[in-house]
Amino acid sequence: MDTHAAFLDEAAALLGPRGLTQDPDLVEPWLTDWRGRYHGAALALASPASTDEVAALVKLCARHGVAIVPQGGNSGMSGGATPDESGSQLLLSLRRMNTLRRLDVAGRHAVCDAGFILENLHNAAQDQGLRFPLTLGGKGSATIGGLISTNAGGTQVIRHGSMRALVLGIEAVLADGTVFDALTPLKKDNRGFDLKQLLIGSEGTLGIVTAATLRLVPAVADRIVVWAGVPDLHVARTLLLHCQDAVGDSLEGFEVLQATSLRAVLDHLPDVRAPLQGEHAWHVLVEVVAERGEADCLQDRVEAMIASAFDAGLIEDAVLSANESQARAFWLLRDSIAPAERAKGAAVQHDVSVPVEKMPAFVHHAVPLVEAEFPGVHALAFGHLGDGNVHFHVLAPAGTSQRDYDLDLGARVSARVHDLVTEWGGSISAEHGIGRSKRAELERLGDPVSLAMMRQVKRALDPAGILNPGKLVTLAPDPANA
Amino acid sequence: MDTHAAFLDEAAALLGPRGLTQDPDLVEPWLTDWRGRYHGAALALASPASTDEVAALVKLCARHGVAIVPQGGNSGMSGGATPDESGSQLLLSLRRMNTLRRLDVAGRHAVCDAGFILENLHNAAQDQGLRFPLTLGGKGSATIGGLISTNAGGTQVIRHGSMRALVLGIEAVLADGTVFDALTPLKKDNRGFDLKQLLIGSEGTLGIVTAATLRLVPAVADRIVVWAGVPDLHVARTLLLHCQDAVGDSLEGFEVLQATSLRAVLDHLPDVRAPLQGEHAWHVLVEVVAERGEADCLQDRVEAMIASAFDAGLIEDAVLSANESQARAFWLLRDSIAPAERAKGAAVQHDVSVPVEKMPAFVHHAVPLVEAEFPGVHALAFGHLGDGNVHFHVLAPAGTSQRDYDLDLGARVSARVHDLVTEWGGSISAEHGIGRSKRAELERLGDPVSLAMMRQVKRALDPAGILNPGKLVTLAPDPANA
Repeated sequence: MDTHAAFLDEAAALLGPRGLTQDPDLVEPWLTDWRGRYHGAALALASPASTDEVAALVKLCARHGVAIVPQGGNSGMSGGATPDESGSQLLLSLRRMNTLRRLDVAGRHAVCDAGFILENLHNAAQDQGLRFPLTLGGKGSATIGGLISTNAGGTQVIRHGSMRALVLGIEAVLADGTVFDALTPLKKDNRGFDLKQLLIGSEGTLGIVTAATLRLVPAVADRIVVWAGVPDLHVARTLLLHCQDAVGDSLEGFEVLQATSLRAVLDHLPDVRAPLQGEHAWHVLVEVVAERGEADCLQDRVEAMIASAFDAGLIEDAVLSANESQARAFWLLRDSIAPAERAKGAAVQHDVSVPVEKMPAFVHHAVPLVEAEFPGVHALAFGHLGDGNVHFHVLAPAGTSQRDYDLDLGARVSARVHDLVTEWGGSISAEHGIGRSKRAELERLGDPVSLAMMRQVKRALDPAGILNPGKLVTLAPDPANA
Repeated sequence: MDTHAAFLDEAAALLGPRGLTQDPDLVEPWLTDWRGRYHGAALALASPASTDEVAALVKLCARHGVAIVPQGGNSGMSGGATPDESGSQLLLSLRRMNTLRRLDVAGRHAVCDAGFILENLHNAAQDQGLRFPLTLGGKGSATIGGLISTNAGGTQVIRHGSMRALVLGIEAVLADGTVFDALTPLKKDNRGFDLKQLLIGSEGTLGIVTAATLRLVPAVADRIVVWAGVPDLHVARTLLLHCQDAVGDSLEGFEVLQATSLRAVLDHLPDVRAPLQGEHAWHVLVEVVAERGEADCLQDRVEAMIASAFDAGLIEDAVLSANESQARAFWLLRDSIAPAERAKGAAVQHDVSVPVEKMPAFVHHAVPLVEAEFPGVHALAFGHLGDGNVHFHVLAPAGTSQRDYDLDLGARVSARVHDLVTEWGGSISAEHGIGRSKRAELERLGDPVSLAMMRQVKRALDPAGILNPGKLVTLAPDPANA
């Protein structure tokens, strides 16, 4: 067996001292995933400075049979960027490739290195009166390459789509070290298979994204956030349709949460008050934006939308943000659900989707069912109703440690939730990807035809299996399911 | 060699008399492509009535090694649905599968069989206050399956995107006869590779689309079409940005044509008058739409947009459609360019794209260059400036027959145009696909890395090469280019 010494010598010569290290102090911080659930080891940490260096490094890996784990900001939710425990995998960080290559104001697009950080793109676009309309909690660390590899979602998907909808072009290094260059943004191009679509969301298993051309949209001139109380999720869904009819594409957010989640947040943030006076079983956050030229009539449009919703009996109570700081305060409540619940104890979290129109029925079915089947747990759903995507969290019985919960009861709860979602025609991973954490569940519940196609494509593009092995899809079916 | 007799017996038993025929009167009409450039032969014409029948038929073909040419409305522009001359390929028509399975008004989507005709979908959506926002000349014959397989474009792409952007789900039969069922519309789904993207635009070479779930949008309540005269394409591009700033997503069309094209149309349609009095080097058609709730301010918005364009010196003259029949009259001028030019004599046509911001410079560069290099020809460009997609037609010297032109001069002109587009980072097929007509040019000019990836994917999903062989991509590189 190759001890990798020859590989490491050649890699060091290729990348130089800044580009390759085995120093545990430098490598260690990147060996644990964002949520702290996986801890791996690495042969070394490679940090190439250019696409050419990535390509040469991958050729070297292919020659020596060294497996590669690409990593961006290491803020993924499914362990897709954490190496395994063997110590034989090379951790390939894209963070040194962090240049904004170009921002074309008239063409409304940006060309970024894979390691460019999302928040920096937000700022660069804002400086030019433009906007990159995808955002999420980890924006200060998440990189463009990671967001593409996981087809990231977030809170603005209802209007602008997931990362896939914002990618105009891609540059990637393939398993044999060749460079796939499709950076040029063509609005129409029918020269065969749209290969960049394969790379988006493939979690580094088919190629390593090194750069991308991304769509920008006009900056938001103004926004109004509405906080409303509704009796149940069916009414919330009707309200969603009402809002879409009333303001069309100006609707940029439609989030829901239960009364219990709001209470948890208020417990967690003692200085914050509830937006509404009374009690409501469900709460809805609606964001409506205006671009330049539309801002004058924003207030009128939102007031008319809410007034007619009242008249139609869709809202029990509602308040409109009077200014930007109040808009931010409403969003802070929404964004604090996850930390507030973590503070309450152990939980298993499921990032699931079903067809948008089925989501109310699914939640009203699944919550009592899970609570009945697993006495002592508490199930709740919140999130992106407009995308048919809720985060379905199931809290452990009081006093259970996260470790104990994960080992048995939590695992059984998760399997049951995934069964239910699959029965309803939904997805066990709406926006977080498969990575390491859901691979077994995908093997267990995924459509066998889709899984077979994925393996065929994986084998075709990475026959030796050196790109992020053990993540997303394996070359052969899992023997446990054969 | 199998004489196919056994195959035909089994296929006849499977499909019944309505499902399989060798009657020349029934088969012949489908053996020539829409533009009359290719004429093939077929073993038989199969017309399965259901996805199950397609699946069983493909299994049968796989067993007997019979190649399949899928066909929808047979209105493609690149010969992708015409069998070769051997008489050994099975023509598989999807036209009998023509049901609208479901139209979900609240969920704003439709589930259609592959053979459902585009215009019928337009009408079904309109009846429910909705719209399927893709349209093109062949809407009365084009089928959903064909539109997906070619990733069709059309005149509304600037806002709503090509077919790819409108497909929420797909059902397809793969090369081994298994059914890939991804019809359920999930707005967010990150369970691995987005396999439906591979099938969209693959021209039947990776699978046979049997059904799809398509996105619908609110019906248009009103529209205004502006006809404007501008001095050149650079100004037209600046006007495009101006309109995008002024009306944002309400901009649904932005088409350009030269004075010579307008004159050709007016010669061709003697009862029609020019929209503007004076002479202008270039003409622009701008469509702005309003959905319900926005219709009141449409006139004001468009008038303000045009007034400020005048003030900025972007428009020499302009007229707004006063009513729907005038709007239709403006579009008739645009839609008559191709027939008007055909009436003037032989031409070679190129459906090309470059990055939107480069299109003016490309046209101003390519037109005089082509005319100088090939004395006697006349080059002109028209079409979808907002998509960076123009139809670049080069008329033959007076008196040249189409046949003679195609055999020599026209072929050299086309090669030169494709060279130029490739140098400019563009696509030799913006919206018409590759099919049979551009396969050699794709081999000659395509990115070798992309071509290699396409072959790897094709080999993985159709190892025996029975799905639409000879179209789009071959299993091995073309020896002429090896």
